[in-house]
Amino acid sequence: MMDIEEALALIQKGADEVLVLDELRERLKLQRPLLIKLGCDPTAADIHLGHTVVLNKLRQFQKLGHKVQFLIGDFTAMIGDPTGRNVTRKPLEREEIAANARTYEEQVLKILDPDKTEVVFNSSWLDELGTTGVIKLAAKYTVARMLERDDFKKRYSSNESIAVHEFLYPLMQGYDSVAMQADVELGGTDQKFNLLVGRELQKHYGQTPQIVITMPLLEGLDGVQKMSKSLNNYIGITEPAKEIFGKVMSISDDLMWRYFNLVSDKTPKEIEALKTKVAAGLNPRDVKFLLAEEIITRFHSRQAAQEAKESFIAQFQKGVMPQDIPEIAIQIDMEIPLPNLLKQAGLVPSVTEGGRMIEAGAVRIDGEKIADKATKIAAGTQHVYQVGKRKFAKIQLDAET
Amino acid sequence: MMDIEEALALIQKGADEVLVLDELRERLKLQRPLLIKLGCDPTAADIHLGHTVVLNKLRQFQKLGHKVQFLIGDFTAMIGDPTGRNVTRKPLEREEIAANARTYEEQVLKILDPDKTEVVFNSSWLDELGTTGVIKLAAKYTVARMLERDDFKKRYSSNESIAVHEFLYPLMQGYDSVAMQADVELGGTDQKFNLLVGRELQKHYGQTPQIVITMPLLEGLDGVQKMSKSLNNYIGITEPAKEIFGKVMSISDDLMWRYFNLVSDKTPKEIEALKTKVAAGLNPRDVKFLLAEEIITRFHSRQAAQEAKESFIAQFQKGVMPQDIPEIAIQIDMEIPLPNLLKQAGLVPSVTEGGRMIEAGAVRIDGEKIADKATKIAAGTQHVYQVGKRKFAKIQLDAET
Repeated sequence: MMDIEEALALIQKGADEVLVLDELRERLKLQRPLLIKLGCDPTAADIHLGHTVVLNKLRQFQKLGHKVQFLIGDFTAMIGDPTGRNVTRKPLEREEIAANARTYEEQVLKILDPDKTEVVFNSSWLDELGTTGVIKLAAKYTVARMLERDDFKKRYSSNESIAVHEFLYPLMQGYDSVAMQADVELGGTDQKFNLLVGRELQKHYGQTPQIVITMPLLEGLDGVQKMSKSLNNYIGITEPAKEIFGKVMSISDDLMWRYFNLVSDKTPKEIEALKTKVAAGLNPRDVKFLLAEEIITRFHSRQAAQEAKESFIAQFQKGVMPQDIPEIAIQIDMEIPLPNLLKQAGLVPSVTEGGRMIEAGAVRIDGEKIADKATKIAAGTQHVYQVGKRKFAKIQLDAET
Repeated sequence: MMDIEEALALIQKGADEVLVLDELRERLKLQRPLLIKLGCDPTAADIHLGHTVVLNKLRQFQKLGHKVQFLIGDFTAMIGDPTGRNVTRKPLEREEIAANARTYEEQVLKILDPDKTEVVFNSSWLDELGTTGVIKLAAKYTVARMLERDDFKKRYSSNESIAVHEFLYPLMQGYDSVAMQADVELGGTDQKFNLLVGRELQKHYGQTPQIVITMPLLEGLDGVQKMSKSLNNYIGITEPAKEIFGKVMSISDDLMWRYFNLVSDKTPKEIEALKTKVAAGLNPRDVKFLLAEEIITRFHSRQAAQEAKESFIAQFQKGVMPQDIPEIAIQIDMEIPLPNLLKQAGLVPSVTEGGRMIEAGAVRIDGEKIADKATKIAAGTQHVYQVGKRKFAKIQLDAET
């Protein structure tokens, strides 16, 4: 086992807050496997790099000898939206939830140690609470403190309705920590309030309160918005290796360091060493290679990472790939025909010439040849466009607002 | 059966609000026995005239052919105060609740028709709700509307804490109406919010919403504060007939009309006729006799009423009882020795003389001879004091603040 102070430094790496660090130190001194809780929705999971920020932290705990419990919030999922207003939140059947949980488990086990990972379902204790249990639970928290939660506060002050049962959900989520006797709970920064409710409730139920660790929300490829599938700025962990390689290579140098900090396994020291080298003249692109390789090695294999790298180099670097590809941001409506885009980016003299180059097989996006001149590109994307051997541009397409 | 409009007039007599009158008219037209709900705490009952305001209204419904269900709120009583802050609200055992319910029933059956009265317990359906049921129930009401309830609004704006479970109680009370399929619910004006929650919930559960009837809170003997045992301004329905007679005779003429309106069985027409007679010169005292007799007849018997009246006349009226006893208010600390009080009220020239008169058997309180000159009188009381045959004073003792 690692020295406790070293372990604390590792746990704090990339974390937004550790509440309370001293308590975590004391807990680590117990020299027993701690129980680390992560709550998950039992909706169909399609895990992307954003999710792995928390998962990596869990893996670090596992490497330190601790045990992870995934808490599947099946109880409320089976209820759906009881107000009936949100038709997209239909009640899930027990079988759907079980299937989703399995898919989820398969994916997270690409990151986590299966021997130190357990899946639990909160229906097993929330059902049992019953009317009396819910009343007693609800008695442990005040309306005023509930209304301090950011989203409740905003909705209340702007006269958007909050149904009374919404106050019960954070309490039940907190009660999960009581039932599980969690030592540590992890979550995104947006979960801080709920995680702290768990801490508080454990005190009420006579337990030593859990340590709460919040992790930052990872920005997507655009470097601005939270990584999400719906914004199409994500790297899915089951995407093909070449796809992941290209996406990683497309991020800005600043964002690269953020990713190193949040998704890489490198220690803070190793990352500092890389920064020093870049400051001394190393091409950031080569450091980005390391990041891409590490990510692909984790989700596919070392060999797949190697192949993806070679393929990328073959397409972009061999010959004349410039040291610095110019970055361009263009505002469009919803989408734009590729020949028009090439013209606007100055890669071709005219739209007609753009179409001609496509038909001649001389246009590539992220190294992939594009043969159809009717191809349209959507707003909200960022790709490397190549015309012939020498013309490159990394184009960010933003939607006009 | 009475004509519907006549029935409506009777139901409205003394009521603060009927929500909604048109709906009640429609419901009466159904020509079936309606189910009238009254919710009660399962604490030990000691019913006084204040309670009978609502009970009389229930009896009127019974006379019209409808059925009364007393809802004993045993479910939450068994929980007690789940915050543990209010030590006086200990959880009640099932046996205590059953015993209290029996005492309660015995007393209310002095007013109500046993054949049309049923006692029900809400544990039989609230237990069953379970965690899921409570969540679904809580989803039917918003936090903002809950905070519109007077006491919640005040406490929230003055930073007094409201525990989350307090929001669940009005919902459960409302759900009682759903489970009972109540047609009409009665309560004091202070219950209006909760009664309306029941109305609302019934709509959510696909029922025709109950009609809500609120009854004014009866003032105590002082004519100012709500009648209550703790303020010692009450007339208990199991008190001896003479006691009740004396207490009724002690109220002001204004308050007498209020009592006629709220606790007497006389119709609005009959009351108007009495008022006309008083305006024409009838002594209000004689009208007060009618009120006292009616109340005693209800809770004891016609004969007891007659005897109480005769005894009262023997003590106070025969001979020289003045038409108008002077009313005096005196401020004291906690209590005052009787001789001192008589001096302060001007009934005796000195404290010593007061003591002497007591020993001589010449001092009466509410017609009862007082023999012990060490007698002390507590603040917060009102009695008629008599010294000898001719000196009377009705003295209100207030605590100095």
